[in-house]
Amino acid sequence: MKIEGVIFTPQKIIPVPGGDVYRAVRLGDVGFTGFGEAYFSTFVPGAVKAWKRHRVMTLNLVVPVGSVLIVMVDTRLGSVSEGGMEVRTLAHSDYGRLTVPPGIWFGMKGLGLAPSIILNVADIVHDPDEVDRKNQDEIAYAWDSSQ
Amino acid sequence: MKIEGVIFTPQKIIPVPGGDVYRAVRLGDVGFTGFGEAYFSTFVPGAVKAWKRHRVMTLNLVVPVGSVLIVMVDTRLGSVSEGGMEVRTLAHSDYGRLTVPPGIWFGMKGLGLAPSIILNVADIVHDPDEVDRKNQDEIAYAWDSSQ
Repeated sequence: MKIEGVIFTPQKIIPVPGGDVYRAVRLGDVGFTGFGEAYFSTFVPGAVKAWKRHRVMTLNLVVPVGSVLIVMVDTRLGSVSEGGMEVRTLAHSDYGRLTVPPGIWFGMKGLGLAPSIILNVADIVHDPDEVDRKNQDEIAYAWDSSQ
Repeated sequence: MKIEGVIFTPQKIIPVPGGDVYRAVRLGDVGFTGFGEAYFSTFVPGAVKAWKRHRVMTLNLVVPVGSVLIVMVDTRLGSVSEGGMEVRTLAHSDYGRLTVPPGIWFGMKGLGLAPSIILNVADIVHDPDEVDRKNQDEIAYAWDSSQ
């Protein structure tokens, strides 16, 4: 299902001799709520990182290399999508940016046979105090079903 | 030589099970002058992209995958490094962020045997009117000397 506030925005790939240019995010884009920090997370093939919830941060995620599965769960009280789960694959083959608002539990898995990399352009600087964590088995999802 | 205003800032790699986290740039960092747009440029091995000069944009460059040679030439009148050339390799093995101020001619080459990728966190949205270009042979540099 579609989680309220989660937005997928296709991004342009600009053909350039020697190597293409991939837009990630710009000022004024839908889902862009300000700049705090940009960082990469890498995934060895098959690696699962789950679960996390940011209480303040809005994430803007793009995958320039490889393919990453993102599973999101809405436990926000009173949200129109409360209790819902949304699953997205970010990859070169369907290139775009995923905006994840605060309050959403999410986990990620590196798909394919090669390492993957995801960029997060966050609207705040990393702050461990605004991050909640659960173990992988605390929210049910069949991670093994996607490769 | 060192070009005035060009800054290399080592960036932290945070070990994470399943795939490390690579910091790119955050609010308040040395060399960070604001957020306009983030985009990736990719390089097939050996590809040279040269030359460009931004009249307004400050670039903040990081290479999370592969290895990219950056050649910079200072033609700014009255700069303490006027006429100087600075050469840098950005790569995983010496991970960091390169700040390139406006007014510097630069070219890049993808090193190694695999594709490389460079992230630019720019302080303005792309604007073709603030970019000057020269052909590769208009500024002398032995691109073939590095691989």
